[in-house]
Formats: sequence, C-alpha cells, structure tokens
Amino acid sequence: MKGIRLSPPPTQTTNTIQLQSFPTTSTNPNQVQFLPFQSKHNNKKKKTKAPILCLSSTNPSKIHPQPPLVVVGSANADIYVEIDRLPKEGETVPAKTGQTLAGGKGANQAACGGKLSYPTYFVGQVGQDSYGKLVTEALRSGGVCLDHVTTISGGTPTGHAVVMLQSDGQNSIIVVGGANMSCWPEILPQHDLDVVRNAGIVLLQREIPDAVNIQVAKAARSAGVPVIFDAGGMDSPIPQELLNYVDILSPNETELGRLTGMPTESFEDIAQAAAKCHKWGVKQVLVKLGEKGSALFIEGEEPIQQPAIFAKKVLDTTGAGDTFTAAFAVALVEGKSKKECLKFAAAAASLCVQVKGAIPSMPDRKSVLELLNYH
Amino acid sequence: MKGIRLSPPPTQTTNTIQLQSFPTTSTNPNQVQFLPFQSKHNNKKKKTKAPILCLSSTNPSKIHPQPPLVVVGSANADIYVEIDRLPKEGETVPAKTGQTLAGGKGANQAACGGKLSYPTYFVGQVGQDSYGKLVTEALRSGGVCLDHVTTISGGTPTGHAVVMLQSDGQNSIIVVGGANMSCWPEILPQHDLDVVRNAGIVLLQREIPDAVNIQVAKAARSAGVPVIFDAGGMDSPIPQELLNYVDILSPNETELGRLTGMPTESFEDIAQAAAKCHKWGVKQVLVKLGEKGSALFIEGEEPIQQPAIFAKKVLDTTGAGDTFTAAFAVALVEGKSKKECLKFAAAAASLCVQVKGAIPSMPDRKSVLELLNYH
Repeated sequence: MKGIRLSPPPTQTTNTIQLQSFPTTSTNPNQVQFLPFQSKHNNKKKKTKAPILCLSSTNPSKIHPQPPLVVVGSANADIYVEIDRLPKEGETVPAKTGQTLAGGKGANQAACGGKLSYPTYFVGQVGQDSYGKLVTEALRSGGVCLDHVTTISGGTPTGHAVVMLQSDGQNSIIVVGGANMSCWPEILPQHDLDVVRNAGIVLLQREIPDAVNIQVAKAARSAGVPVIFDAGGMDSPIPQELLNYVDILSPNETELGRLTGMPTESFEDIAQAAAKCHKWGVKQVLVKLGEKGSALFIEGEEPIQQPAIFAKKVLDTTGAGDTFTAAFAVALVEGKSKKECLKFAAAAASLCVQVKGAIPSMPDRKSVLELLNYH
Repeated sequence: MKGIRLSPPPTQTTNTIQLQSFPTTSTNPNQVQFLPFQSKHNNKKKKTKAPILCLSSTNPSKIHPQPPLVVVGSANADIYVEIDRLPKEGETVPAKTGQTLAGGKGANQAACGGKLSYPTYFVGQVGQDSYGKLVTEALRSGGVCLDHVTTISGGTPTGHAVVMLQSDGQNSIIVVGGANMSCWPEILPQHDLDVVRNAGIVLLQREIPDAVNIQVAKAARSAGVPVIFDAGGMDSPIPQELLNYVDILSPNETELGRLTGMPTESFEDIAQAAAKCHKWGVKQVLVKLGEKGSALFIEGEEPIQQPAIFAKKVLDTTGAGDTFTAAFAVALVEGKSKKECLKFAAAAASLCVQVKGAIPSMPDRKSVLELLNYH
C-alpha cells in the first residue's frame, strides 16, 4: 500500500460488460446466474437441503453451466487516514484526509471474480455494523453471491484496519481481526462445506484462522476441487496440515522469502525458494513479482514466466495481488492453459493499478480482454 | 475519553418514554412531532417556502406548541481501537478490539435533545459514505429531525476520528474533519437560517468552522433566540464576532482555563476565569466540572452551583459533557429555572456515564425525571 494518496475515488469506469464466456438473461451486466449445484463432483453424501440460487433465472435454458469460484476468507473495512506524522501518546493530530473502503483479501478476491463476470460465492463473516454493510454492499454490487456470508451478533465488529499513511511514505497499520478472526464455528456448517465441494475452484488467504482454511481445503480436496492458497495475511508459518490440501500456493516475493527463509533477489533465488515449497507437498507455486511480472513453478516442469503488462500510469497498487490471484483462478476454472492464465491475470492486475482503491479498481472482463488484444 | 475499554455495547435500556411535557400521537415514544414554525419571533422577512413537518401529525389538536431545539454542528464516526501500544513507522500492530460509533459534539447534543423527547433539529453535513449513514441512522433513531442535514458529494468523507486507546490509559487521536470542516456554503441557505430563527434555543460547538457558527449565532440573535455555545472542539481562541452573539458560553474546566489563560484549580479561580468571559460580552458562563458538578456564572449575580449527581458506577464519560449541555438547553427552553436546569442536566449526565458510548448512553426523559425524584 506504499505511496497511496487519498482523494475522492474516480467514478467507476463503466461496468457494461459484454459477457464473453457465458450467456445470462440478467439485465444487469454485472450480475451472473447462480444455479443449483452441478453434479460435477461425485459427492454422494451431499446434504444440501435446497438448490442454491442467488439470482432467479427467467430462462433456465440459458443457465450458465460452469461451477463457481468459491472464495473463503476475510471481509474488511480499510480506514485510510493521511497524516503528516503519527500522534504521540495522549496527542490529537489532524488528518489531511481520510477514506474508508471495503477490503480484506477474501472480499477483494471475491469481488474480482464477480467483476470478471464469473459466478462467485464469498464465504466469510461480518459483524452487525456499518463496516459489514459497507463490505457486503461492495460485494453485492460486484455481483458476488452472499448466501454464505454469516453476520455475527453480540457486538463482534466486522474486521477493520486503520492505515495511517504518513508524509514520508511510511504506512503504519492497526488491524482489528473482529469477525474475520473470531466466532467461527469449530466445525463449519455443512451448507458452507457443500458450496466448497461443489466449486469449480476454491480460493483461500491468510486473514482467517488456519483451522477454517484447513477444513475448507480438506473438503475441496475430498471433492477433487482445486485449491489456490494466497499466502498474504498472517506472517506465521503455514501449518503442514493446510499445505497438504493446497494445489497452488501463491505468495508474492516478500511472502515467499519469509515463508521459506530464503533469499528472493534473483529469479534463481525464487526458483530455489519455490522448490522448497514443492518439498512441503505443494506441486504448484505461483509467485507474484510486482512490476517484474509473475512465474508459475510446477514441480518437475520448466517454470512459466509472465512479464508484467505495462500500465499507462501506476496510481495505486492496493488489491493488485488479490486481482492477480483471483483473475488467475477464474482463467484456470474456465479451462485456459497455464500460460493463458498468467497472461489474463497480468492484464487484470495491470488495469487494477491504474485506478485507486482495491475493489473499485478491479476490472471487468471486457477491459481485460481488450487489453489482452494488444498483447 | 479516558479509561474507555471497548466491549459490545450493552443493549439500550428501554426507550419507552411517558412523555412528561407534551402530548404526541406518535406510536413510537421516541418520536416527537415537528410542526410548522410557530411565529414566536417577529421575523417579517422569513422566506421559509413550506412549513417544516418531520413527522406527519394525525391529530393537529395535539400538536406540540414548543419551538424546537436546533443544534448546528459536527457529525462524526468515532473509530475506537484498543491497542497495547502505538505502531511505529511502517509497522502493523493488532488491536485487541475495535468499535465504531456515531459521535461528534453536534450529533451527540442533537441526539440528547431527541432522546429527551424534545423536538430537535440537527443542522450539519455528512459525506456520501458508510459513516454518514451511521450518524444519520443514530440521529434518526434518537428522534432527531434530519431535514437540515446536507450530504456532501464528490468524495468528501463524513468527519471521523480514530481513537487509539492504549494499555497505559493514554489515548491518541487522529481527526479527519471531512464534511464537518469543509464544503460549507459561504453564505448559509435561507432554509437553514430560518430553522435557526424559529428555534426555541440554539446549540453550537467548535467542531465546524467559526464562520458557520457566526452566521448561525447572528441569525439566532436577530430573531431573539438564545444561543448556547459549547466551547468543546477546536483549541484556537474564539473570535469576538462569535462571542458577541452568544448568550451562554459553556466550557468545561480545561477549556475555560485554556480560553482565558487563567488557573481553574479552585472555585474562586473558576469564578475569576468566568468573569473574564463576562468581559468578552458573554453574560452567562456555564462551567462543567465533571465529578465536581457544575456552576452557572451570570454577570452581576451570585453563581449558581450544582453538585454532580452520584452515579452508581462510572463506566464511560464519553458524551457526558454533551449530554449536560443539551439537557440544560432542553430544560431552559422548557422554561425551567436556572437552578432546575442545572439539576436536570446533572441528572442526565449522571445517567450517561453509567452506560458505554456517547449516543447509546444518553438517557430518556423518564429516566432523568425518575432520578430527579430521588434528589
């Protein structure tokens, strides 16, 4: 979040999407059809009581056949305040300006899936407060299905973070875990695990308890659903029990270095660090390298490299990593080749950094495809 | 705000009010009737286009005849985060918990008027964001008329403050002025000045620009409406042009000391400092002294003292000063004697400190009157 300066967010570029990959009868181009689960996976013990249908379909023949992207993770309000310097103890300082935006790596990635017009479910928790409304509203307007969002009562707040942007470019952050980190049931309800088992792909991050991620990854694996695990969030080592069920681990350069305790200066360094992840049982490591692009290391294969796609102006990199991971997931579940997935994700991330904010900056499918036409 | 510890706010004690001073046909006991302006003041140039009626009356014969309390001031979201220590530059620290509540001295005082079931208008500005919704919702549920709340577009946020509560009892605060401090029209619109001129009493504080307060105070004076000016908010000297139109200046002990540059250790000190305010042309000085009570210094008269009314438990003093000032204003406009006004305000403040939060802790009229029965 370096170098962010707050100002009124630009008016969202038009969301008029010409759906490229599947037809819908919806008049809102950002809305996608959510359907009864496809029996993609042989899951005889499924206990789903009723078909999940987020938007009613007026023409079942036009129903979209693809199994959804399911994102399980955090929903946050990011409270940005721009200050000359941090206050001392007991001191009150004025901020130059402030802005509070929907965020959280889980919500960001779900919003990206929705904006790319892929059927996307978000599984997460919010509190009964204004931040909960802020995030769910952002997700809803991004076309994400919220049937599996739980609202926690009893005063637990929605997760939020105060991001203090200082004149010298430093950021200091206070994180309130709130409903992201507490009040999860010890055993996830069947209807949440069912949506995971019936997904086309599952996306996880590290802003909710490991125990939740483990249950989700395990359920996904049991149904043959691939799991992408974004390493962003907590700094602690990832439990081996979780890594056992991860198909693609996706750290950025810094996270890869921290996780492996290895240098990540050169491409050779990064390849070595990725090889260490392979030893943990993770067959694919998708490393985000910022302006240096990205690389996918598949065990026993040659790495696939993707340069960053040039952005006319880099305005705000917030959410760019989340956009990359989610766009990669969407491309993958749509059956694109790994090389194509990397390129699609690079294009989405390139568009993201050109607009301020995380969710407001996530591109629609049309914009991504248009950019790809030039590359 | 010392010693605040965050936890889920207690369920609001029942708001079932037996209206003591005026009848209403409303089924919601917290709602009060807003009526066409009474021609209390001889204001021939009044340009009000239409009568202001916040709640439709089904029985005009039961219309409440009292001119409203009009509060012009700030609306804020107060973002409390409880941390072990402040983060350093570039550091991320976890908060133990966090809670975001509606606040701002203007909104607090208006909410208090509404909760005391006195017809209350709030004149202020919010942004088009979740904080704006938070504050207006709190005011609406407190029974305050919001016809004169302006929503600022173009990305200006609702005023908000990050209150970092530290383990050692220190608080550090970052204030985003937002719509409280910017985007006010150079000349206030006639319909806002009309509601001021037709008020029974006007309450101001120092969290909006002096220029706005000056216009309001001037309009009130021109119509013979008394102005109470709470000295809380900005630390800068109060412009003489504003003091010229103030009937009652209400600082707390600290504010009185800062404004006058005089000690406020003893009652004699305070009396001397109040006398200095009299020299500025303010005939009445209402000093809030916390647990030591309060005192009203009227120029040329003996001071009236009021001891604090004992609170069974002091849980949170946030908003107690605002409750005191607003309750005093309500009692005054209802025609109570100065001594009675002080006692009514002391009772309201005593109830406020026994519940967490500012607006959630403000008492209803019935509770205040019940407490007064014992004193």
